[in-house]
Amino acid sequence: MVETLEAEFLAYIKKMEALEEALALVYWDLRTGAPAKGMEGRSDVIGVLSEEIFNMQTSEEMAAFIAELNLNKENLSEITRKTLEESQKNYDLNKKIPSKEYAEYTKLVAQAETAWTTAREQNDFAAFEPFLTKILEMKRKFVEYWGYDENKYDTLLDQYEPGVTVAVLDSVFEKVRDGIMAIREKNATKGINPDASILNTKISKAKQKEFSIRILNKMGFDFEAGRLDETVHPFATGLNTGDVRITTRYNENDFKMAVFGTIHEGGHAIYEQNFAAKLVGTPLANGASMGIHESQSLFYEIIIGSSLAFWKSNYADFQAITKPAFDAVKLEDFYRAVNISESSLIRIEADTLTYPLHIMIRYELEKALINGDLEVKDLPKAWGDKYEEYLGIRPDSDTNGVLQDIHWAGGDFGYFPSYALGLMYAAQFYHQMQQEIPNMDAIIASDDYTPLKTWLTEQVHQFGKTKKPLEIITDTTGEGLNPNYLLDLLEKRYAYVYQFTE
Amino acid sequence: MVETLEAEFLAYIKKMEALEEALALVYWDLRTGAPAKGMEGRSDVIGVLSEEIFNMQTSEEMAAFIAELNLNKENLSEITRKTLEESQKNYDLNKKIPSKEYAEYTKLVAQAETAWTTAREQNDFAAFEPFLTKILEMKRKFVEYWGYDENKYDTLLDQYEPGVTVAVLDSVFEKVRDGIMAIREKNATKGINPDASILNTKISKAKQKEFSIRILNKMGFDFEAGRLDETVHPFATGLNTGDVRITTRYNENDFKMAVFGTIHEGGHAIYEQNFAAKLVGTPLANGASMGIHESQSLFYEIIIGSSLAFWKSNYADFQAITKPAFDAVKLEDFYRAVNISESSLIRIEADTLTYPLHIMIRYELEKALINGDLEVKDLPKAWGDKYEEYLGIRPDSDTNGVLQDIHWAGGDFGYFPSYALGLMYAAQFYHQMQQEIPNMDAIIASDDYTPLKTWLTEQVHQFGKTKKPLEIITDTTGEGLNPNYLLDLLEKRYAYVYQFTE
Repeated sequence: MVETLEAEFLAYIKKMEALEEALALVYWDLRTGAPAKGMEGRSDVIGVLSEEIFNMQTSEEMAAFIAELNLNKENLSEITRKTLEESQKNYDLNKKIPSKEYAEYTKLVAQAETAWTTAREQNDFAAFEPFLTKILEMKRKFVEYWGYDENKYDTLLDQYEPGVTVAVLDSVFEKVRDGIMAIREKNATKGINPDASILNTKISKAKQKEFSIRILNKMGFDFEAGRLDETVHPFATGLNTGDVRITTRYNENDFKMAVFGTIHEGGHAIYEQNFAAKLVGTPLANGASMGIHESQSLFYEIIIGSSLAFWKSNYADFQAITKPAFDAVKLEDFYRAVNISESSLIRIEADTLTYPLHIMIRYELEKALINGDLEVKDLPKAWGDKYEEYLGIRPDSDTNGVLQDIHWAGGDFGYFPSYALGLMYAAQFYHQMQQEIPNMDAIIASDDYTPLKTWLTEQVHQFGKTKKPLEIITDTTGEGLNPNYLLDLLEKRYAYVYQFTE
Repeated sequence: MVETLEAEFLAYIKKMEALEEALALVYWDLRTGAPAKGMEGRSDVIGVLSEEIFNMQTSEEMAAFIAELNLNKENLSEITRKTLEESQKNYDLNKKIPSKEYAEYTKLVAQAETAWTTAREQNDFAAFEPFLTKILEMKRKFVEYWGYDENKYDTLLDQYEPGVTVAVLDSVFEKVRDGIMAIREKNATKGINPDASILNTKISKAKQKEFSIRILNKMGFDFEAGRLDETVHPFATGLNTGDVRITTRYNENDFKMAVFGTIHEGGHAIYEQNFAAKLVGTPLANGASMGIHESQSLFYEIIIGSSLAFWKSNYADFQAITKPAFDAVKLEDFYRAVNISESSLIRIEADTLTYPLHIMIRYELEKALINGDLEVKDLPKAWGDKYEEYLGIRPDSDTNGVLQDIHWAGGDFGYFPSYALGLMYAAQFYHQMQQEIPNMDAIIASDDYTPLKTWLTEQVHQFGKTKKPLEIITDTTGEGLNPNYLLDLLEKRYAYVYQFTE
């Protein structure tokens, strides 16, 4: 009896996953060259598929599956049990909010994103303020519906980074902030500024692409299970484990965008190409969390791809492909230029060292907003104060300040911390990897990085969403989240880049 | 009350159309570069979407719409009424067959296509024979379920070419056959064979593409409502009127494949880009029939794109783009080489003059098979006899004979005639267009063919599937299907190509 029910449930889930795959293809297509005039028709497709998925997630049939399967939970396979938990989490998230309020919220968010676009263009926070105020008001109410234990913000964090709490974040972020501040202080007082102008040279798209593909191959990105396209805003999307697509953007005056962007998206993609086969057709064939996903892209982009060992191994190739652009540039100077760190106003343009500070600012503001310690009208000032405190600069406009990110217009509170967590996870994985793979530098000096990929697949990729982020960290490294590995790495890197001795 | 029901019905239909659009995107993607390893997952998506569409087409809800709306048919808008007729036709097609037999048939066809692939590769009709025998047996039975008036084959014809019957086809095909035979006789006895070897020169893909895009623009293909990609088997697919995609295949040793292929698919695409806006979201935003669709592609490929006026106007451009490949080739020689006609065994490689004969052979065989006048075991001999009679050649193998087309393996009896009808329709439209647009040659000599497109849109495109094929012919040309326009055109063309005086 329970076997039949289990099979029916899995078939139901598989159908939802197929609809999700169709939807993901529609989005990929829209972002990689769908004709402009087809948009209106395509919106209907998105509407129909999304509604169908939502209906299946929240149907009476789903409610019955949840109720009945929970009665026999101990007899279910692990896959079914975890799929059930995921389904129940989704069901509760949607069903605990009165449907009228949910509909109102969906509409509000769509309007808010439009309002945000205009407000940002026109540097006019006041025009966006009423929308954000209303979103925050509803979000606070939703948190009450969903419930919370210690901190209201925990409930939102849990939606992106299951198991991570304000208590965890406050502790690690404080350490990271202090560590980064100390490195920045050394850079400024004892360091020599790298000359980044040596990178200002035109590299054709074809050459950038050739080098990027070479690195993707070294990393073990499987081109038979994926493809590389062009887009305005680069992304990776896993349609299924055999079809994971990455996109990049070529700027002929700034090769870094495509080269590091491709490596970054390649890291995301390799994760999705390597979920265990048994997870396919369930929501478990997904990243464990936003932060773990980001740890895979940052591992390749920042930990490996921005390391001296990587460039020692790849710079000759890079010089040959881009010849003669870098003929006169020494490896060390190139490496230092690539890793320059400077205070900046825009998060997505920030370097490795300052990036976590941008995230912490948003985290602190969000936490205050959700807990009622800050109101939307006071946000621009609070934003400016934080930037001044952490980065020593103050935005000259709302456009370059509080209006720069779309997240809040979309109601996505609780998402930002994952970006910084990703970097910490990556550094912690890397530290552990070094203990287990002694000849790491030899691997990075070779044409085949797949031992790194294999390690990540065994420790991280294969599990998909069957483990929570901190569970993966503990199982893999034998300890909880520890920000010191990131700080150690940053200290060593910047000591070399800024040429100071510790 | 009927207004509410009508709105509900149209919303139901619109949802089905959105699912069809998603499915069309999946197929386009599979054929233009989807990674090989993603196929298995993508099959599930195709399965789920197809099943959902089929379920909606044959649901009790659909049955209720059909029953209730038919009670108030005179109060419905024209769009709703014609949509209802389409839906009812589909419903009956599926529901008149016992569901067990339908399932058996679906399975059989899938197996037969696999068997056909192998049999064709191995030149082994005997291996395919039992599948085809079974398909024919079921198809004969289905015709009994569906019902028929004069000829059993009419029921199948009606599925592709509504309103066209054996009586119509027997009459026009006889005339066309006799006319073509007479032209072939003149070519052979009084003509000078063109030298096709002058076309054997290598033209790069980039150059072929440049010329093809130039012609697409002249034709009025809207690149903001479509795109051009590469594929193995070229096709056009209208996802919606604002997103109609064509694909082509570049053979650097045979530029004709891409150049004429692009013009052909461009003709299909322009049809789909120009359905009236009021048809969008219904099954009426589709070609009136296979034959009318083919008339639009052949109008551009054969009537215009293979005419002397077209090459007079475009040859200098073509020479410039492909320089120096055709520097020494005179326009007249080029034009004659492009239009050479020779007996051949393979339908899809046939030229304009012999192509209809390939179709008639299949038509006569199909008609005999469905009516019980021919059995599958006797098919290879009958095939060979017909080829000898019509084209003077006999296949050296089943692969080059009866096994060359996939259609029968897919159960698609009744489809072939549309290919030949398309050419007749196109010639008849062209004749009428010449009466109404006096300066036709000046238009073809110009950079803008849109007066032709405008005429076709007003007479054909805008109506989508609201008119039947012969209705379009009569409304547009004031007479029924008349094969003489095609024969006149062919006679004039080949008199020039083969340099004989009539």
